Amino acid sequence: MATVVFVKNTAHAASRRCLIYNLKSFTRDSHSSFTPHKRPLPPAWLSRTTEVRFMSRGSSGRSEAGARNSGRVMLALKGAAAVTAAAALGGFLVSANHFQRAEMATLVPRRAEEKDQDEGDILARCRGFMSPPVTDIAVLQGRKGEMCTRMEMLIMETQADFCKALEKVDGGTFMVNRWEREEGGGGISCVMQDGKLFEKAGVNVSVVFGNLTEEAAKQMRSRGKVLKGKDGKLPFCAMGVSSVIHPKNPYIPTVHFNYRYFEIEEEDGSKQWWFGGGTDLTPVYVSKEDALHFHGTLKEACDKHHSQYYPDFKKWCDKYFYVRHRGETRGIGGIFFDDLDGPSQEEAFGFVKSCARTVVPCYLPIVYKHLNDPFTVEEKDWQQLRRGRYVEFNLVYDRGVKFGLATPGSRIESILMSLPLTARWEYMHEPALGTREAEMLEVLRNPKEWV
Amino acid sequence: MATVVFVKNTAHAASRRCLIYNLKSFTRDSHSSFTPHKRPLPPAWLSRTTEVRFMSRGSSGRSEAGARNSGRVMLALKGAAAVTAAAALGGFLVSANHFQRAEMATLVPRRAEEKDQDEGDILARCRGFMSPPVTDIAVLQGRKGEMCTRMEMLIMETQADFCKALEKVDGGTFMVNRWEREEGGGGISCVMQDGKLFEKAGVNVSVVFGNLTEEAAKQMRSRGKVLKGKDGKLPFCAMGVSSVIHPKNPYIPTVHFNYRYFEIEEEDGSKQWWFGGGTDLTPVYVSKEDALHFHGTLKEACDKHHSQYYPDFKKWCDKYFYVRHRGETRGIGGIFFDDLDGPSQEEAFGFVKSCARTVVPCYLPIVYKHLNDPFTVEEKDWQQLRRGRYVEFNLVYDRGVKFGLATPGSRIESILMSLPLTARWEYMHEPALGTREAEMLEVLRNPKEWV
Repeated sequence: MATVVFVKNTAHAASRRCLIYNLKSFTRDSHSSFTPHKRPLPPAWLSRTTEVRFMSRGSSGRSEAGARNSGRVMLALKGAAAVTAAAALGGFLVSANHFQRAEMATLVPRRAEEKDQDEGDILARCRGFMSPPVTDIAVLQGRKGEMCTRMEMLIMETQADFCKALEKVDGGTFMVNRWEREEGGGGISCVMQDGKLFEKAGVNVSVVFGNLTEEAAKQMRSRGKVLKGKDGKLPFCAMGVSSVIHPKNPYIPTVHFNYRYFEIEEEDGSKQWWFGGGTDLTPVYVSKEDALHFHGTLKEACDKHHSQYYPDFKKWCDKYFYVRHRGETRGIGGIFFDDLDGPSQEEAFGFVKSCARTVVPCYLPIVYKHLNDPFTVEEKDWQQLRRGRYVEFNLVYDRGVKFGLATPGSRIESILMSLPLTARWEYMHEPALGTREAEMLEVLRNPKEWV
Repeated sequence: MATVVFVKNTAHAASRRCLIYNLKSFTRDSHSSFTPHKRPLPPAWLSRTTEVRFMSRGSSGRSEAGARNSGRVMLALKGAAAVTAAAALGGFLVSANHFQRAEMATLVPRRAEEKDQDEGDILARCRGFMSPPVTDIAVLQGRKGEMCTRMEMLIMETQADFCKALEKVDGGTFMVNRWEREEGGGGISCVMQDGKLFEKAGVNVSVVFGNLTEEAAKQMRSRGKVLKGKDGKLPFCAMGVSSVIHPKNPYIPTVHFNYRYFEIEEEDGSKQWWFGGGTDLTPVYVSKEDALHFHGTLKEACDKHHSQYYPDFKKWCDKYFYVRHRGETRGIGGIFFDDLDGPSQEEAFGFVKSCARTVVPCYLPIVYKHLNDPFTVEEKDWQQLRRGRYVEFNLVYDRGVKFGLATPGSRIESILMSLPLTARWEYMHEPALGTREAEMLEVLRNPKEWV
């Protein structure tokens, strides 16, 4: 019997309990022939365990990574062709130091169009995931066409694609934690800490449901729309994938993305739904090429759906990721949107799917490009100071973090996995004029149009 | 002509301007004979300049420290006898590793009683400060008996006493910045960064005035008392000294204190006033001896004024410095109070004075005790994780920080100087049972009665 250990979450870390998740029903079909190996490889997560590590540094179970990755790559070839293809380009990209945006875009293959139909057997698709989905697979199979199912499959797939692409380039392995929310739902947190390339990489999926108060429901919608509940209570379902990647090399930027879906049932049984999300980049030094590639890739994904999406959501991103007390944006932006409930649910989901599938081609080429960039202690220090600003934004302004910290039953470790492994605050630090540090600040103080 | 460079503060760092402060009138009398030197030494701050440092590490102008300190000590012998006496005890305390609380108390001399009358010439007292006070000395001399003057003298004196005691034990020098608030008032920030002992030591004085809205005034009082202003506006004056010291050695705890005074004038011209403050300790490892000494010293200061002060304010402290999302207190507490407006202004001020003058005897003996404690990389890592929690409290919960970040015209660098130089966040870190790290967490999760 294959097992995955997962963490049952309560408000306090002290009361976390480890439970064994019975995967009998799920593994029944795991011998299907989707790898060229004679002895079929089990999905990578079947052999995972949750480990509470004590100050381990740099190992992260990397000794096992080779063996696991060989199996993982086989899965990926089927399940996430774009990811492995992008990763396979790594060797080429590393040696191409000054290629232009147009070339970058050409190098990054888009996901095959046939996958855009989110077709295929639920169980077969789940085999590519980092863990079984939060919702029971039988339940998902039972309501295959519903948006809740389609979105949960998309966020699970996004998590897996991104994790695998990062594991491939880093050589390390993600620690996978399943957790349950007492009030309903749960999540899957994938974290790689102190890897070869990544200081801290977190990719989190959560699917939660229960009842909201009218006040809380109002707060969840950025336009503050009033919703009528039965006896003031509104059944809701919220799900999303979110990620923050903090690399070690100061020339590889931090990336963040988050794609989410909400459903709230009103008194009369009608459903309110909306999507939100975005992807944004936080470099330590300005690279126009990187910015052009990143924004260009996002723009391309947006333009397929509406010509106003990129310009509107780019502006929204600069406005949202603003560290007001510093007078700086957190990074060079990207796109950010919330409360998207049109033109139709199908169209909105299609847009979110395009965005989610743009994460790997947005970021991985930049990682490969700067993989071996040399850097000095001073450049590392500047990165650490920028990390400090990242912490300031996340703890002081980020709506998701604030909402999470204030919500009983939230899994704090998953919310705060966005914080870097290390950060620094220097009193009255101000880069000298004409330095590349000053150039970065200038861009953060006056957001640019990159494309 | 002696000069001090100070920083004029506006909302954004970019618009800070440096101005030259003319000290002619102040230095007129600086040749009075309060040092035994034949050529009178100028007050230490007369030769200070504000430096914007770029990534300097470990130097902090320590080469000049010896020369400056020799002059400083002479001043201190007159101006702050207790401080230098405590510092002079250092050599003895370092070698006494396991002395008990009673001994500790005996070793720490209290300030001479005659100084408790806050007598003496304003100008002469100012010479012991880190910088001229925020309010013009002539203005202070003109309203010598008023509470605003007495409190400003007390907070300036507290800053100087504490800074000098820390410089003495570290060997480093505080950087002194004067800053002005556009809306009225200003402050003096003293920061020592990357010293021999201290990772970051900040001691800040601010004296601000202007007009508050009725809503803001209500928020400022923890009991939310409604105040009536003229056309909704209330002239106010707020001043305080606050400090956070983050040492390098994980066996020397972080200390924080803050003593403040508010005055608000209502529509009918009557004045509302109150004091607030507290001192609390955040160790990385539990030391019962240190806790006993720290709390015992605070209790003694409190008991002189009211037998309920210590127990009440100890409880308040545990409640206030609570990191709710972690289910932990920030440290082992101390005392915290707010909105203290009785039994009389004289009595309340007397109590605050006792507390402020207890800072050095509370903390310095602990510093000297652990000065040379050896530590491992793992212990340093645990300290860095605890620093991360400190950042979480300060950015998410601290009322002063939140108020400061949200207030236009605040000096962000002074507000955030409480953040450590470096911090760390590890995903799902949980110390193994039976370790000293687990012992620390246990104390933070279940606050203790130490005395």
